[in-house]
Amino acid sequence: MINKVPALQSVLEMALPDQAINSGEIPWVPQAERVWFKPLRFDLVNGRWINLLKVTGGGRVNRHRHAGGQVMGYVIQGSWNYLERDWVARPGTFIYEPPGDIHTLVVDGREDMITLFILEGVIQYLDDHDNIIYQDDVFTKMKRYLDFCQAQSIEPLNLRY
Amino acid sequence: MINKVPALQSVLEMALPDQAINSGEIPWVPQAERVWFKPLRFDLVNGRWINLLKVTGGGRVNRHRHAGGQVMGYVIQGSWNYLERDWVARPGTFIYEPPGDIHTLVVDGREDMITLFILEGVIQYLDDHDNIIYQDDVFTKMKRYLDFCQAQSIEPLNLRY
Amino acid sequence: MINKVPALQSVLEMALPDQAINSGEIPWVPQAERVWFKPLRFDLVNGRWINLLKVTGGGRVNRHRHAGGQVMGYVIQGSWNYLERDWVARPGTFIYEPPGDIHTLVVDGREDMITLFILEGVIQYLDDHDNIIYQDDVFTKMKRYLDFCQAQSIEPLNLRY
Amino acid sequence: MINKVPALQSVLEMALPDQAINSGEIPWVPQAERVWFKPLRFDLVNGRWINLLKVTGGGRVNRHRHAGGQVMGYVIQGSWNYLERDWVARPGTFIYEPPGDIHTLVVDGREDMITLFILEGVIQYLDDHDNIIYQDDVFTKMKRYLDFCQAQSIEPLNLRY
Repeated sequence: MINKVPALQSVLEMALPDQAINSGEIPWVPQAERVWFKPLRFDLVNGRWINLLKVTGGGRVNRHRHAGGQVMGYVIQGSWNYLERDWVARPGTFIYEPPGDIHTLVVDGREDMITLFILEGVIQYLDDHDNIIYQDDVFTKMKRYLDFCQAQSIEPLNLRY
Repeated sequence: MINKVPALQSVLEMALPDQAINSGEIPWVPQAERVWFKPLRFDLVNGRWINLLKVTGGGRVNRHRHAGGQVMGYVIQGSWNYLERDWVARPGTFIYEPPGDIHTLVVDGREDMITLFILEGVIQYLDDHDNIIYQDDVFTKMKRYLDFCQAQSIEPLNLRY
Repeated sequence: MINKVPALQSVLEMALPDQAINSGEIPWVPQAERVWFKPLRFDLVNGRWINLLKVTGGGRVNRHRHAGGQVMGYVIQGSWNYLERDWVARPGTFIYEPPGDIHTLVVDGREDMITLFILEGVIQYLDDHDNIIYQDDVFTKMKRYLDFCQAQSIEPLNLRY
Repeated sequence: MINKVPALQSVLEMALPDQAINSGEIPWVPQAERVWFKPLRFDLVNGRWINLLKVTGGGRVNRHRHAGGQVMGYVIQGSWNYLERDWVARPGTFIYEPPGDIHTLVVDGREDMITLFILEGVIQYLDDHDNIIYQDDVFTKMKRYLDFCQAQSIEPLNLRY
């Protein structure tokens, strides 16, 4: 009958370090008009990244498709919706977006929205004719963060874990 | 030069549905004294589950080990810490716990803490002699939720997506 | 002390079914000149797909970048290499390709190569000027398989699990 | 219209290194009577591990449950089956085992079986009364490998990627 964790000492020696990232120490990085992100993790092993997204009233994240990975979100503040969907996301709403999902995020109210997003794969921005006009992945987001820190003379945190 | 999403119509037809889960409609399920969880997703394909954890002042989640998967957390409200670590988690703190991590979650203040956790693998609770005294995984959490709903005559949401 | 699996009966009732896919029943789907794939799984929850890749002597998979996800491979038969790397993959070689990896797969010998690949994210094919000229993901591969089955009057297997 | 990979230079600089592991250089590590494994990757970020499993004729992997993660397999050589299932795995069979799956692997024929397994979570071995008598995860497998290398004076490869 098992009662001990096998190899417990090895685990304690070989496990990776944990991380506690204070988002208050990370700047809001401009992404588009009235849209900012604050990165929390760049997972280069899996191609995932985690960030807070902030959109102020009247702002939007243009129509885009999530290719090659799922997205999960949890609303911290404010409300928003996808033009292509019926539901409205409010504080406490958890969102799952399957691979391939296409949508346009709009913030109609006056209040800023802040949502935690856990992203995989590639975000491809589409124009009205379904042309791909730009794309983001873990590397473009990391580069934006590092470039912004450099421009602002901010010491970037090591978020590659 | 690529300008269209290949197979766009197929994607729209074959992609899984998205999900927007209103956590306000889900009950707090008792887990231990002064500890509750509110499930948001039971991912039976991968063995992951996502929940809000609530611990009231003076409560704790006994010493446990995360075996076979990583954990990520984001603090919504209140503050807490692991007895085995130096950092304190506050609203806006993002936490990564590697596979194998062992810790004891305590809430010292008077304010309730609420934290979003994305969990994989197995949680094994340990006594002072490192004996495994209980374990949780996606199935035990789902069973607790379904049993609680039945006992309270609450219609459970379908969170298996 | 734990000695039983908690909620064992629930697990047996609620777990998803296992799958045993006989690759001998699946056709080689043409992908490019001297290049075929045989799908084994289309995981629409995560955006992953798993396939055998076959390339005959002198064939190549044009220069491409894996965006937004990792790739793992295991060589079953034959040998091949990436033009951009020094190593040669032979039967029994296990390959990890990190998100962002760019390479050109060539088969120099006369023997067919067959390699199992587990893929995530998006494959973007590049021309000599780094223009993206085509891309594949779980949906384009699924569509190719279904279209080929239809054209050949083959009943497709349900590989969406 | 997108035609270039955004931040291509950054990707080339920041991406993790690829890996090509020659399984011929890795020893067969004894696991039980007539059962050996050959590790290919210990992914400590995600709690996954990848190995070849070898079982000689008449050997078996005792009844076990995969808790907290999925398993995928691909048969390289020989044939085997799970006592609890109807199907037989042969060269070219791809297997998906969902979280929670319980089974007993047996090799009836005379030929050695070799199967590639990609594992997540925890393997819990059960006796006839469903007592958990042992468990394996990425750490116990890594420790077995390192201990075996030390005992045999073999320089272990760095498989923690």
